[in-house]
Amino acid sequence: MDFEYSDRVKQLLERLRGFMDEHVYPVEKTFHEQLQEDRWGEPKILQELKVKAREAELWNLFLPDPRLGAGLTNLEYAPLAEEMGRVLFASEIFNCSAPDTGNMEVLTQYGSREQQAQWLRPLLEGEIRSAFAMTEPKVASSDATNIETSIVRDGDDYVINGHKFYISGALNRRCKIFIVMGKTDAENPDRYRQQSQILVPSDAPGVNIIRPMTVFGYDDAPEGHAEIIFENVRVPAENLILGEGRGFEIAQGRLGPGRIHHCMRLIGQAQRALEMMASRSEERIAFGRPLSKQGSVREDIAKSACEIEQARLLTLKAADQMDRHGNKAAKDLIAMIKIVAPQMACNVIDRAIQIHGAAGLGQDFGLAQQYAYARTIRLADGPDQVHMMQLGRNLAARYLAESQGGKHDH
Amino acid sequence: MDFEYSDRVKQLLERLRGFMDEHVYPVEKTFHEQLQEDRWGEPKILQELKVKAREAELWNLFLPDPRLGAGLTNLEYAPLAEEMGRVLFASEIFNCSAPDTGNMEVLTQYGSREQQAQWLRPLLEGEIRSAFAMTEPKVASSDATNIETSIVRDGDDYVINGHKFYISGALNRRCKIFIVMGKTDAENPDRYRQQSQILVPSDAPGVNIIRPMTVFGYDDAPEGHAEIIFENVRVPAENLILGEGRGFEIAQGRLGPGRIHHCMRLIGQAQRALEMMASRSEERIAFGRPLSKQGSVREDIAKSACEIEQARLLTLKAADQMDRHGNKAAKDLIAMIKIVAPQMACNVIDRAIQIHGAAGLGQDFGLAQQYAYARTIRLADGPDQVHMMQLGRNLAARYLAESQGGKHDH
Amino acid sequence: MDFEYSDRVKQLLERLRGFMDEHVYPVEKTFHEQLQEDRWGEPKILQELKVKAREAELWNLFLPDPRLGAGLTNLEYAPLAEEMGRVLFASEIFNCSAPDTGNMEVLTQYGSREQQAQWLRPLLEGEIRSAFAMTEPKVASSDATNIETSIVRDGDDYVINGHKFYISGALNRRCKIFIVMGKTDAENPDRYRQQSQILVPSDAPGVNIIRPMTVFGYDDAPEGHAEIIFENVRVPAENLILGEGRGFEIAQGRLGPGRIHHCMRLIGQAQRALEMMASRSEERIAFGRPLSKQGSVREDIAKSACEIEQARLLTLKAADQMDRHGNKAAKDLIAMIKIVAPQMACNVIDRAIQIHGAAGLGQDFGLAQQYAYARTIRLADGPDQVHMMQLGRNLAARYLAESQGGKHDH
Amino acid sequence: MDFEYSDRVKQLLERLRGFMDEHVYPVEKTFHEQLQEDRWGEPKILQELKVKAREAELWNLFLPDPRLGAGLTNLEYAPLAEEMGRVLFASEIFNCSAPDTGNMEVLTQYGSREQQAQWLRPLLEGEIRSAFAMTEPKVASSDATNIETSIVRDGDDYVINGHKFYISGALNRRCKIFIVMGKTDAENPDRYRQQSQILVPSDAPGVNIIRPMTVFGYDDAPEGHAEIIFENVRVPAENLILGEGRGFEIAQGRLGPGRIHHCMRLIGQAQRALEMMASRSEERIAFGRPLSKQGSVREDIAKSACEIEQARLLTLKAADQMDRHGNKAAKDLIAMIKIVAPQMACNVIDRAIQIHGAAGLGQDFGLAQQYAYARTIRLADGPDQVHMMQLGRNLAARYLAESQGGKHDH
Repeated sequence: MDFEYSDRVKQLLERLRGFMDEHVYPVEKTFHEQLQEDRWGEPKILQELKVKAREAELWNLFLPDPRLGAGLTNLEYAPLAEEMGRVLFASEIFNCSAPDTGNMEVLTQYGSREQQAQWLRPLLEGEIRSAFAMTEPKVASSDATNIETSIVRDGDDYVINGHKFYISGALNRRCKIFIVMGKTDAENPDRYRQQSQILVPSDAPGVNIIRPMTVFGYDDAPEGHAEIIFENVRVPAENLILGEGRGFEIAQGRLGPGRIHHCMRLIGQAQRALEMMASRSEERIAFGRPLSKQGSVREDIAKSACEIEQARLLTLKAADQMDRHGNKAAKDLIAMIKIVAPQMACNVIDRAIQIHGAAGLGQDFGLAQQYAYARTIRLADGPDQVHMMQLGRNLAARYLAESQGGKHDH
Repeated sequence: MDFEYSDRVKQLLERLRGFMDEHVYPVEKTFHEQLQEDRWGEPKILQELKVKAREAELWNLFLPDPRLGAGLTNLEYAPLAEEMGRVLFASEIFNCSAPDTGNMEVLTQYGSREQQAQWLRPLLEGEIRSAFAMTEPKVASSDATNIETSIVRDGDDYVINGHKFYISGALNRRCKIFIVMGKTDAENPDRYRQQSQILVPSDAPGVNIIRPMTVFGYDDAPEGHAEIIFENVRVPAENLILGEGRGFEIAQGRLGPGRIHHCMRLIGQAQRALEMMASRSEERIAFGRPLSKQGSVREDIAKSACEIEQARLLTLKAADQMDRHGNKAAKDLIAMIKIVAPQMACNVIDRAIQIHGAAGLGQDFGLAQQYAYARTIRLADGPDQVHMMQLGRNLAARYLAESQGGKHDH
Repeated sequence: MDFEYSDRVKQLLERLRGFMDEHVYPVEKTFHEQLQEDRWGEPKILQELKVKAREAELWNLFLPDPRLGAGLTNLEYAPLAEEMGRVLFASEIFNCSAPDTGNMEVLTQYGSREQQAQWLRPLLEGEIRSAFAMTEPKVASSDATNIETSIVRDGDDYVINGHKFYISGALNRRCKIFIVMGKTDAENPDRYRQQSQILVPSDAPGVNIIRPMTVFGYDDAPEGHAEIIFENVRVPAENLILGEGRGFEIAQGRLGPGRIHHCMRLIGQAQRALEMMASRSEERIAFGRPLSKQGSVREDIAKSACEIEQARLLTLKAADQMDRHGNKAAKDLIAMIKIVAPQMACNVIDRAIQIHGAAGLGQDFGLAQQYAYARTIRLADGPDQVHMMQLGRNLAARYLAESQGGKHDH
Repeated sequence: MDFEYSDRVKQLLERLRGFMDEHVYPVEKTFHEQLQEDRWGEPKILQELKVKAREAELWNLFLPDPRLGAGLTNLEYAPLAEEMGRVLFASEIFNCSAPDTGNMEVLTQYGSREQQAQWLRPLLEGEIRSAFAMTEPKVASSDATNIETSIVRDGDDYVINGHKFYISGALNRRCKIFIVMGKTDAENPDRYRQQSQILVPSDAPGVNIIRPMTVFGYDDAPEGHAEIIFENVRVPAENLILGEGRGFEIAQGRLGPGRIHHCMRLIGQAQRALEMMASRSEERIAFGRPLSKQGSVREDIAKSACEIEQARLLTLKAADQMDRHGNKAAKDLIAMIKIVAPQMACNVIDRAIQIHGAAGLGQDFGLAQQYAYARTIRLADGPDQVHMMQLGRNLAARYLAESQGGKHDH
């Protein structure tokens, strides 16, 4: 047991921090200004930063396969994801942003050679963006077996009909490919064999993007969250990933690393919010002394630091378990970080907002937008409650078995 | 002691509910659509509803002076404010929206006859809107003695210089008058005598509206929250309200009823969120049964109902105390509702969002915007912490005195 | 609507407070000292105080029937119960302590003339004490249909066999009668018709008191909580209350007022803890100033005051609804106070303990024992979770129905 | 970075678990029964277990000096302390119980050769027990500079006068030596140089043990918490530890490891409570199904597991930092675990109590006594608030400095 990052991680982290300090923090405002002019394109500054990141060899850090990316374990990647998470748009600079990371992982693991050539390669190069179309407005998508989109074989094609929303990334003009989850076999008595995942080009006829969905008042440009109606969308049968009925299997595969990434980004956000609230509290005077001398402010800072450090360690441990024993063995730890990190980030950012006063709610400090993101993750990939249900069920069964096996007498 | 609304209130409430059911809920979507076309004007539907509200004699319900308004006590008005609060834009239909209510109260209580003729009358008629300019970006405005805007006598005029932000209502084109808080006597050793309040027409030269501030991504059109620079703004000396150095005195006067209003609106919001989450949980199926059969959902509903009812009763008691004994005697109760109601509304609405899934974050159910409003009120009129500090200080002193006086032996 | 106590209540309250100030607070220590010598008898000081209370006409205040008690409504009695609740042993001084109050109510409402003559009369006189035997160690008694004690008809008698625990009051030597809940018809398909309640004298052969159960480390003398085995206990058939299969009906009848009483006592406890923490914080110096100048202490005091006042109002409203519309109509409000008040009292007392430091945990301030009592009430009469389940279920159904009935459009 | 225990720790842990399973869990009841007969002696079973523990070479595991103990680092010892913490009395079996561990560390680090020969040796052998006398009833001892006990030089002696309470361990008849904190130089302008620590034999004339203090009704026999009056207690000048004015320096030295130990024991307690609640919830049926199928029960289990694992990791990291960089460098992490672990344990145990129903409050499951211990630790070694104040202050200063140094731009 050892709580120090490895030398390799320390070096990468130092380079990444240097990059953030030099190139990213100074242009946060520029990014938002450029976005004002064209919300669904790629701001020029983002293009420039990507070039710099490739030059700095800070590219595809998330990919464990060294032929395709940095070849880092989850444990090694985690602190880098945290660092990128400090700025909402930073992950993309390093080609490490969701949902592209998950989609690249799916194509790497489950894609055919042709699918990889056509879609994985340009994604790895950062030439295109992608989306993952699962959530539907008409059913409780927290139970993925509810998904109703139909994927029907018709000759050499599949025909897709369905209504999706909150499809992140889909509004961006550079988003060229969707992975769509739907039912190829709605009558299968095994509800976990009804679903498949299929590749749908964003420009296929019948892909109707209805509108941008908002999160709180944000459209989250330039990725955005689309409402989409798939109306008799026809794609070649080869676009199916892995095979009919294997949608859940693919979904499982993407969840572990994806959650580590999301949670570490949230920890980066929370850490930054903590630093901001600490600095602000030293600088603002009320009732004759700096806010940082108020007991309640000190408690907010102390609690936040405790919560962040705990969530960080839990996420790192989950990453370590995944690396050592695989996603399945680590499933309870993965559930734990999904339960813990988003709520923690909401709590910390909310305290930072409070200490910033009205300005904390607005566009100048980014805190409210960070809150909106953290709040979203309490729902994305399943709401907190679903993970608590499953974790609680697993643990109740396990501890009963252990106690009956006399492992611990109590 | 008696927990039933009076017959008069019951009747008014029934009429108001009828109006909301018939005229307001059905056009919520229309309101937002019309707003898309012109964000800082008055949506046509709002104009029409105001006419209907006057016809229905549901107008200026907040004003205790029967010559000017409905002549209701705070206790009588409270449940009506709750009902209006269910829809974010509804209060204005009945000419009962902040900050106009507070400004009308100030002008009624402290305005000169000329000030009343020029500004109070059109406000009472709903012909114009107003704003209250206090918060400043450069100082911790939670301590109002920090306010730096200068109001300097120059011949028959005052000249105003200062930087304000989050000035609610000021972006609307119909907003014609600001009440500005600033310092006429920055050197006065009594920090509570340095401030004055002065009337500034929105079209006075030197009133520069810089930009709309956002709240969680919302611009809160058509009122909005403005950043404003007052640059050598010159107004006649008669525009000063009540007299130099009396800014705090005026501020105190507006706080009591204003807080009751805000809190009751928040209770209306929370109540509606509860009803929405209850209905949604009955309708959505996950893991084979309605969400409402999940224990955690039932607990969320139960907790929310408990919190709402308690906050409602506390606010009603505060109103009753103000009516019976005056704002000053009720100050601890007023602090209590300011501490309790906004956090309660945040909690309840957050649970409702969670039960709505991704849709809860977006534009179709209004929950996220309600959350943003409730979250704002945890900062408006002083952050929670300031009220807790003052209440805690008062109670510590009071209970010590009582125990020393042997009132209760412990 | 009106938040002031009636003149009658104010007068009674003043007299009761006077009695507490003069006779009860000064002898708290004496009470505990006398108890050290004989834990299951009646401390002499308690006997003396009862005589004084009768003389002061502060006796049987809880009984709404003016022929038997004070003839107060629940709303009128509530603030008196709060006042008595400030001292753990005070309610008995006024013959207003649980479970005797509930048992007297049951006998008043459902007892036969003979049952009343034999048991109700001496209870009303304070000559004997009683217990209510429901909870069983072997089943989850939160679901009362689980109760397994058998009550079998045998000729002119019933024969009782069962195992009970946490039977409050049963260890006291003056406890002469138990009301026992058990099954007369375990096979009845209607699970709510299987149970009956029967009177069992504490000296009946086969009533074996096994041991005192503790609550935290307290034995809660002189009432105590007994573990009891009923072994072939034989009582005359006339001892059955109301009739076979009516156990649940009787249980329902006692719950409403009983909960009001418990909650108001808890509010009295919490209020006293608040006063103690406020006074203590003014008197203790740490880091150069009184604790009451620490922000976190002020927040603790402020939050506690807010929570107490809200719980108090909710309980008073529940009492008012019961008085106006009956226990059944008030059932959701009664559930609410059962959910709110015990947890609130735990929170407030816990904060008071923290401010008292180590001494807060011990025997000199009574706070830890008050905490133990409040914590117990989170389980007595059903754990919080059961009440939240039922309240959540009721509200989900109600609000869905209202929304479908178009009562509120949302 | 690596989250697996080392092989050495795994082996020790396996042996310790084997010992607990074979020898400790089976005699928990016996321990409490023997204690009933003689509360302040050493139960026979405890004597027997100590012999077995020495034979099993599970003795003085806490001592980092391999000549005196097991020679483990803090990180290595932590999981062993957790395991022992599962049973309240188990640590002493392995001579690893507070306050003896802290006292042994003090004597090892700061004791003279004579002090070590006289007191450290028999402590290491488990022949005697010790106490640490700091807390005083008359001052807020959370601020240790308030301590008023006087230690006055008189010829070759020191004379001690003072009033202490909650002196843990001091009631046990085998407790032979106290380390007493008091003032040798009350007028020293440096408040942190006024204090000294001195060795006082428990049988010295003038050491008056007044009474056992309780914690939530528990006397915590056989150690107990004593109220003690030191009345002209005279000891040789050589009994002073380290030198006059060095009391704070010694106190600092003992805090780091002591907090790790306490926190890990609490984690063991919480873990056991979790396992108990999980098993119980599978076994108890209410409303037609096991409690473990109730959503709220599953959430309680899930939340508890998340909280425990986070606190465990945080404590392990603090231990690792102490081992690598020393107590001072680790001070913020040590503050964090002191803030986090006791409250976490209270929360988890409270949930376990709730799931056990009334039985959870009593003497059969040990949960209420565990709660009392965890609650105590929220006050021992300084209340939560003091640690939050200091941590918040440190972090505010640090993050401001970092932001001004341009380390992170925000």
